[in-house]
Amino acid sequence: MDELLRLDVTVLWTVLWTVMWTVKVVGVSVLAVSVTVELLNWLRRRYKKRKPLNEVLFFPSEVACVEHLLSPSAPHPCYCALPHGVDTSFSRLLRHVLSASSSLDLCVFAFSNTDLCRAVLSLRKRGVVIRVLSDKDYIAINGSQIGPLRKAGICVRSDGGAVYMHHKFALVDGSLLISGSLNWTLTAVQANMENLIVTMEPELVRPFVQEFNRLWELSDPARTLSNGVQTELERTAGHD
Amino acid sequence: MDELLRLDVTVLWTVLWTVMWTVKVVGVSVLAVSVTVELLNWLRRRYKKRKPLNEVLFFPSEVACVEHLLSPSAPHPCYCALPHGVDTSFSRLLRHVLSASSSLDLCVFAFSNTDLCRAVLSLRKRGVVIRVLSDKDYIAINGSQIGPLRKAGICVRSDGGAVYMHHKFALVDGSLLISGSLNWTLTAVQANMENLIVTMEPELVRPFVQEFNRLWELSDPARTLSNGVQTELERTAGHD
Repeated sequence: MDELLRLDVTVLWTVLWTVMWTVKVVGVSVLAVSVTVELLNWLRRRYKKRKPLNEVLFFPSEVACVEHLLSPSAPHPCYCALPHGVDTSFSRLLRHVLSASSSLDLCVFAFSNTDLCRAVLSLRKRGVVIRVLSDKDYIAINGSQIGPLRKAGICVRSDGGAVYMHHKFALVDGSLLISGSLNWTLTAVQANMENLIVTMEPELVRPFVQEFNRLWELSDPARTLSNGVQTELERTAGHD
Repeated sequence: MDELLRLDVTVLWTVLWTVMWTVKVVGVSVLAVSVTVELLNWLRRRYKKRKPLNEVLFFPSEVACVEHLLSPSAPHPCYCALPHGVDTSFSRLLRHVLSASSSLDLCVFAFSNTDLCRAVLSLRKRGVVIRVLSDKDYIAINGSQIGPLRKAGICVRSDGGAVYMHHKFALVDGSLLISGSLNWTLTAVQANMENLIVTMEPELVRPFVQEFNRLWELSDPARTLSNGVQTELERTAGHD
């Protein structure tokens, strides 16, 4: 009888032990799955690539006052007759240009828009490094803003080779691309049907950065000059 | 003595049981973690968004033969004097245009490039729905390809309002956008410095689709006509 009781106790003990450990196994498994899911989720959030900015602007733009963007520290609000505080395609373009903190590379066929010129000059005052490439025939046209830029010490180059330097793009801090059909003129902004893509997509920005640097080097006056001198020397040598 | 032996057996049994279950707990935990990681990985791969196409083309393009693209079923290879089998910016542009299977919406300021016209006409033959918007002043210039397109029954519209319909973009099947500074002319392709962004990024494509549809409606001749009739009626009513 005593022996039977002992056996019963052993069996009971074993069953209790098994149940306890089964609960432990299930518990730990659930915990392991939960912890793994949470950890992977955290890692995903931590290293997830942020979606780059992609925006499209269409023109003609509504005409509105942009003084608050160009003179943000003016003591009084602007009292001009234009609508104020309106978000337009042009004000968005200005905001993107004015967001430059280190560099602005500008490659435009025609540049005669005075507001955009003021924006570039204010960047210059803030110490932003500015490089401008423009078409040789359009640099000197009436109303061109290339003169004021040059007067402010901004380096402007033009290439003499191609029929037209027809690009219309800007690179803000080497990471934001503004490109489309829009020349930097008043007609383009206020009258024509135009478009601009504004993007930080590296696959789109990178080729434009490379192309700008290539064209900048190609338009180096020293290079043109040295080529000219070289040609002159070759010509003289031919005469000897 | 017998009792002590029994106790020893019980203790041994308990220890053995504990070790066995510990191994089970650790094993099942490792298995749970592995299965969870694998499952999440599979789900990530399964539902991962494919990166949309993003490409940049620069011009002037190298001049090369594109007959293999325009007449892929020609019985003999082309024997023209141009280089063959060269991948250029222009051949890539042609490939993108020719990839249309359902629709091509074209919104270009100037269209005089005969190869691009052939590409559009071959799409028309394949049953692709084509809509063309062009600038009113440039539709009738020398070398314009708008005439041949209209002769082939392609619907071409132009807006009379804006100073210039200066866009240069195409939408292939409503999902691929080709946009930049390049007009569809020979000079733009072979001589000028130009750019084109080719993208399937929905955030960039969607606004262009909407803008094309807006401009298409705006340029509906029936609308212009009915507006004209309306004005005429109003004028007549004013006289009564």
